[in-house]
Amino acid sequence: MITYSFTDIGSETLYQHLYHCLKNDIVAGNLKENDRLPSKRSFAKNLGISVITVENAYAQLLAEGYIYSIPKKGFFVQEIPDAVRMRYQEMSEVEKGRSSYREKTSGRKDGTISLRNGSPTILADFASNRNHPDHFPFSVWARMSKETMARDPHALMTPSPTNGVYELRAAICRHLSAFRGMKVDPSQVIIGAGTEYLYSLLIQLLGYDKIYAIENPGYKKLYQIYQSHHVICRAISMDEKGVSMEQLLKSDTDVLHITPAHHFPTGIVTQIGRRYELLNWAAASERRYIIEDDFDSEFRMVGRSIPMLQSIDMQGKVIYMNTFSKSLSSTIRISYMILPPYLAEKFHEKLGFYSCTVSTFDQFTLAGFIEEGYFEKHINRMRTYYKNLQRRLIESIKNGPVASKVEIAEEEAGLHFLLKLETSLTDRQIVEKAMAMGYRVLTLSECYIRNGLEGFGKTTDTHTLVINYSGMEEDQLPLVNGLLEELCR
Amino acid sequence: MITYSFTDIGSETLYQHLYHCLKNDIVAGNLKENDRLPSKRSFAKNLGISVITVENAYAQLLAEGYIYSIPKKGFFVQEIPDAVRMRYQEMSEVEKGRSSYREKTSGRKDGTISLRNGSPTILADFASNRNHPDHFPFSVWARMSKETMARDPHALMTPSPTNGVYELRAAICRHLSAFRGMKVDPSQVIIGAGTEYLYSLLIQLLGYDKIYAIENPGYKKLYQIYQSHHVICRAISMDEKGVSMEQLLKSDTDVLHITPAHHFPTGIVTQIGRRYELLNWAAASERRYIIEDDFDSEFRMVGRSIPMLQSIDMQGKVIYMNTFSKSLSSTIRISYMILPPYLAEKFHEKLGFYSCTVSTFDQFTLAGFIEEGYFEKHINRMRTYYKNLQRRLIESIKNGPVASKVEIAEEEAGLHFLLKLETSLTDRQIVEKAMAMGYRVLTLSECYIRNGLEGFGKTTDTHTLVINYSGMEEDQLPLVNGLLEELCR
Repeated sequence: MITYSFTDIGSETLYQHLYHCLKNDIVAGNLKENDRLPSKRSFAKNLGISVITVENAYAQLLAEGYIYSIPKKGFFVQEIPDAVRMRYQEMSEVEKGRSSYREKTSGRKDGTISLRNGSPTILADFASNRNHPDHFPFSVWARMSKETMARDPHALMTPSPTNGVYELRAAICRHLSAFRGMKVDPSQVIIGAGTEYLYSLLIQLLGYDKIYAIENPGYKKLYQIYQSHHVICRAISMDEKGVSMEQLLKSDTDVLHITPAHHFPTGIVTQIGRRYELLNWAAASERRYIIEDDFDSEFRMVGRSIPMLQSIDMQGKVIYMNTFSKSLSSTIRISYMILPPYLAEKFHEKLGFYSCTVSTFDQFTLAGFIEEGYFEKHINRMRTYYKNLQRRLIESIKNGPVASKVEIAEEEAGLHFLLKLETSLTDRQIVEKAMAMGYRVLTLSECYIRNGLEGFGKTTDTHTLVINYSGMEEDQLPLVNGLLEELCR
Repeated sequence: MITYSFTDIGSETLYQHLYHCLKNDIVAGNLKENDRLPSKRSFAKNLGISVITVENAYAQLLAEGYIYSIPKKGFFVQEIPDAVRMRYQEMSEVEKGRSSYREKTSGRKDGTISLRNGSPTILADFASNRNHPDHFPFSVWARMSKETMARDPHALMTPSPTNGVYELRAAICRHLSAFRGMKVDPSQVIIGAGTEYLYSLLIQLLGYDKIYAIENPGYKKLYQIYQSHHVICRAISMDEKGVSMEQLLKSDTDVLHITPAHHFPTGIVTQIGRRYELLNWAAASERRYIIEDDFDSEFRMVGRSIPMLQSIDMQGKVIYMNTFSKSLSSTIRISYMILPPYLAEKFHEKLGFYSCTVSTFDQFTLAGFIEEGYFEKHINRMRTYYKNLQRRLIESIKNGPVASKVEIAEEEAGLHFLLKLETSLTDRQIVEKAMAMGYRVLTLSECYIRNGLEGFGKTTDTHTLVINYSGMEEDQLPLVNGLLEELCR
């Protein structure tokens, strides 16, 4: 049986390590086409790891097309075209030419995967919405954290109110007032460990009996979360002005969850007229609310000309959500929502028994980080950085060999844009081909809910990539043209 | 209208400050019996704070019996007996005699409240299960945190797997193996921001269609959480061996949530025979599971002789839960559960799309804290401390003036015990009288679910206090006898 060492695996998880080892052997040809992989159970026993670890590694290889499975028979190595092997070889050569970069990032980098033992390759991830670690202001954060702990132990040991410590809620309000023109009272702010957790609180607050709706196409995870909470979740189509009023009015939606400032993935900005139509829709029934998910507002590339729903909502119908997981780091789990005053009161009444899910240490650290201006500085720096990254990426494509075969929806966008390809490949083939070359991509069709309800995936091909570049690095930009060349066929 | 200054309120929240100001004026007689308090809206406007802040302060004064409300009329000051006023005065004198202590803790201490401007009083909280801030190993935690940030930025910036970073899960497994004899694989561990959040994940994992059950009497919050998630929650009575098999078998329960190691609030330890009966019950249906909530296991006062359900479960039916919020600090939101392997696989399949709710910073810091032995040291120190605190508290009562009128269920317990009073007061009167004297107490009857289902509160009086002493300080111990004297009448 194949065997690998699990000592000295750095910061990789066991499953990542196993995945890399297997993939490496597949690409290098040590594991050959149609070779049968060991059974999960015996492999786990042999390696001294858990069955789940093996299962996770197999699942990822399967998803990426390196192996295939035959029910009741097991897992087998997929055919790897020679062109792909050669490309890995080339990349490996490039790789050797910049060993300092390699040392810095080996096996570590989020969104990219470096194989070990001098063998290939670097993979770029154009589908991830994660941000890149090098840009997090570590030293400032560490200092704020240290100061927080030194300053006031008793405050840190006093349990946070359900909605978060006052200092952080006040800091968020001052920030929103100064930089977004939003007038919000700290009592309306609810702090939680990530927006995913806040959605769960919202369902408890607004009711399991309500009918929720998200945008179609949209952010797949939202659909999964509502499904997982066992509430009904509809999908409403988009038109060029935002979410379709016609479909919305025809539906039985109570709570509409949208991204009006910058729709994911199309980049559509909901027009002002549509915003008022949406508010009127919400005002027409006591059961109705709008969740304004402002997930990447900090990085919008141009000035805002259209007011937020939250700012023009006079009826107390809009719940505003935002997160520091995107603007600071996806590994810091702090998000917030702003409830209209009536709902804020109801929140304390119905859900006031909950403990806040964010530690007081982190809450006070972030409060200081905002109050002392570091958050603003960070946002400004990152906005410039992302703007340049986007510009170079788009220029590189426009000056590249397939410029005439691609069409970029060049939004004044957050951290993603759409790229339409002239290709005979289906969307599924696009994903598979890219993956075989070492790239993770997301197609527009994967963002659709099929038939309105039964899971994601459009039935017709979109030939369109959703390019998320927040986790990319500048030296990965040149790789894009090679990928596009392969895909435009 | 009354007015208060909100500058220089230290670490108090606005609502706490307003509450203290009002209570101070009520006890001092500045606000007199039957005086009407300002309307919430006008008071908020006048003070420049939010209506919710005023509402929260009023709600707390109401709950504590300082004010009463007349629907449509407003809030009015309750009668404060002269004896209570005088007692406050006395306490105030005692207070002046130890100003160094006072300076250290003024307005800060969790579970106790010091009023300002040299005026009375100190309140003790015998109902809180919070732990005391002075015992948290701040300097070690700060150092571990600093080392974590210095060591490996890239690991910190790599998003945590849904179930938590491997290092922390492995550290927990090694700890459980070394100190509890539990054999658990890191792949079975799920890290989350508090047990309350983990309950929510469990409901999603096990199903909204399942029928849940908790112990009666029990921990009120559990009932609230299941209710809030809109699942059916039964309440099963206790007998002297643990949760009643007779009632359990008669019920339609699928998922039984219990505290077998140390029942809250009675302290009953589920006997070994009952444990096997429970496991057999669970094994009889595919739908059945047992949640073993080991909430205060670290502080159990004597050695364990009865094995944990998790350890003797051969069928994969037991979900074990524990938290660092209790053993370290209630302001650190890190808990974990251990799933049987089959459920761990199902977890990744069904809920693997979620982000972990604990920041990687905190996860790595805690992993280091455990691995370097600090967690064990802290637990050992605290176990000794609590043991002494409990002993002194019980001795003080047994040597006090009402020794013959009280009965202590002196369990080899965690951080609480039951105290039965010889009194003519109803349980409600006990709570109100204690509150008027400045003490928060919890009666056993408040831990009951009435009629099995419709909310908490036993209809017959128990004359029994649930004494939670984890948040108490030694110099508060002498106050207990004064309280008991008043209650035993």
